[in-house]
Amino acid sequence: MTKKRILSGMRPTGKLHLGHLVGALANWTKLQDEYDCFFMVADWHALMSEYANPDLLKANMLDNVIDWLSCGVDPEKSTIFIQSQVPEHLELYFILSLITPLGLLERCPTYKEQLRQVANRDLSTYAFLGYPVLQAADILLYKADSVPVGEDQLPHLELTRQIVRKFNHLYKTTCFVEPRALLTQTTRLLGLDSRKMSKSYNNYIALTDTPEVILKKVQGMFTDPERIRVTDCGHPDKCSVSSYYAAFSPQLKNQIHQRCEKAMIGCTECKKELAAMLINLLAPIQERRQVLQKDKKQIVEILSAGRQKASLLAKKTILEVRGLLKI
Amino acid sequence: MTKKRILSGMRPTGKLHLGHLVGALANWTKLQDEYDCFFMVADWHALMSEYANPDLLKANMLDNVIDWLSCGVDPEKSTIFIQSQVPEHLELYFILSLITPLGLLERCPTYKEQLRQVANRDLSTYAFLGYPVLQAADILLYKADSVPVGEDQLPHLELTRQIVRKFNHLYKTTCFVEPRALLTQTTRLLGLDSRKMSKSYNNYIALTDTPEVILKKVQGMFTDPERIRVTDCGHPDKCSVSSYYAAFSPQLKNQIHQRCEKAMIGCTECKKELAAMLINLLAPIQERRQVLQKDKKQIVEILSAGRQKASLLAKKTILEVRGLLKI
Repeated sequence: MTKKRILSGMRPTGKLHLGHLVGALANWTKLQDEYDCFFMVADWHALMSEYANPDLLKANMLDNVIDWLSCGVDPEKSTIFIQSQVPEHLELYFILSLITPLGLLERCPTYKEQLRQVANRDLSTYAFLGYPVLQAADILLYKADSVPVGEDQLPHLELTRQIVRKFNHLYKTTCFVEPRALLTQTTRLLGLDSRKMSKSYNNYIALTDTPEVILKKVQGMFTDPERIRVTDCGHPDKCSVSSYYAAFSPQLKNQIHQRCEKAMIGCTECKKELAAMLINLLAPIQERRQVLQKDKKQIVEILSAGRQKASLLAKKTILEVRGLLKI
Repeated sequence: MTKKRILSGMRPTGKLHLGHLVGALANWTKLQDEYDCFFMVADWHALMSEYANPDLLKANMLDNVIDWLSCGVDPEKSTIFIQSQVPEHLELYFILSLITPLGLLERCPTYKEQLRQVANRDLSTYAFLGYPVLQAADILLYKADSVPVGEDQLPHLELTRQIVRKFNHLYKTTCFVEPRALLTQTTRLLGLDSRKMSKSYNNYIALTDTPEVILKKVQGMFTDPERIRVTDCGHPDKCSVSSYYAAFSPQLKNQIHQRCEKAMIGCTECKKELAAMLINLLAPIQERRQVLQKDKKQIVEILSAGRQKASLLAKKTILEVRGLLKI
């Protein structure tokens, strides 16, 4: 039996951090055994917000792919490629946009939220409104069966499914199949300051942070504000440090929670243990990174092979779609 | 001195008629001596309105190009190509859409007018809103100096100029130059029923109409409604037949107008003379068409050569643009 196909991607907008590891990469490395995985550097998507300052894009792309590989994404199992190197993405994007009702995009909840929240970028552009149409093209170009998504991405996937239904109906075809959501189990990792972990908040631990930096960052993390003295009993559910234990070591978490609630461990010690755990976790990743970084040629070759594999499927889909549109 | 470059195109949505001859083709054949002309079959633009019924697109494309050649567009002088065969159009379209403010498109007067006027097509799609951005990409891909436009197309060209200014400013470049409008002198030809000549009104004389059909269509044309008897004096400025003389034979026009105003010629005779003139005008065009139609291979070769020439320039521009965007 052939494996089901998955498409997922990341925007190369900066260094990868623990949030990416927990939210995506840990999942990717698990999925690649069961599925035929396509992992994409979404540079066109990145440009939708970074168009005014694209200087770091190229460096980020290579750097992120090194992180993917260091975390265990395996080019022997998965297809790793750069979106802009497969021109069919934009062609399918255009063709899907021919049949996508404007109202669907304008009413998309994530669209309205982003326009409100992102203050330091001008997102009121024509391209940004089409963000979910490009996502639909990414998925459908490879006829992915499933897409690993967080709950916040469900409206986008629903839009893809609507586009599939309209396309198949309009051109009397079964060319595309509605992709299913593969809801990821992992909880979203909070930042050091308890807000969402994000590059723009500068509240993250990068996958490349040194032990010294990790220790310093963990020492500065927000903890239970009601626990003033070390003899006060703590409330782990109000503490970022505790949430990190939950994300990275469910076993250790219970033990730490009990000790915290009974004031058997102080915040300083608790943080020291967390830092040690994270340093340990990242050590093998950073070791692999050291090796990979010395061999940029190998990365280029992996991306070139990925491009070829992706192109083969992409061209096949576009040929089929062009046939249906009589061009 | 190298010639200035021009880009113009036509949507392959149906048979070409006298309106196309007067409004575009007569102009194109004149321009090709003075300018380096790029004439494009705008099939992506056609799909923006015809996406639900694309069946005739391919046949129309070939048929229209035969008409172009029959009317005197010369592949030795001009580059004739199909938009969808040069993938760089969609890439530049996407890149320009990254920096195009949504409001500019929503406020575009032709956009609002089309949404109101076109009743038998659903134009409330994402793609259709981007119509002028794709036009901008068409023009800028070949760095055209000028664009032959009617007055109604001026807002679109102004949008291209705005996009150029924003692009050059944002990426600190002089990559693109604002294209100038080359306002066409010809008046717009009215249809047989005095409305705009249009395929959807079925009020046109096709370039391929036989002498019998032309005669019959001209006989059914609207004339001065105040001239009831042949002895009544006519008002040429209220008569479609008279406007055709103005469009096709300014010399004959004065003579006909005088005879009409003095009731020295009746409408039947006047129409017969017009039909004869149009049949005469179309005869050599239709003769050339007969020859061209027999040699489809030649048309394919012309389009293939055009594609190669267009691609060369397009690739150069995209390389430059990718450099500026650091991808």
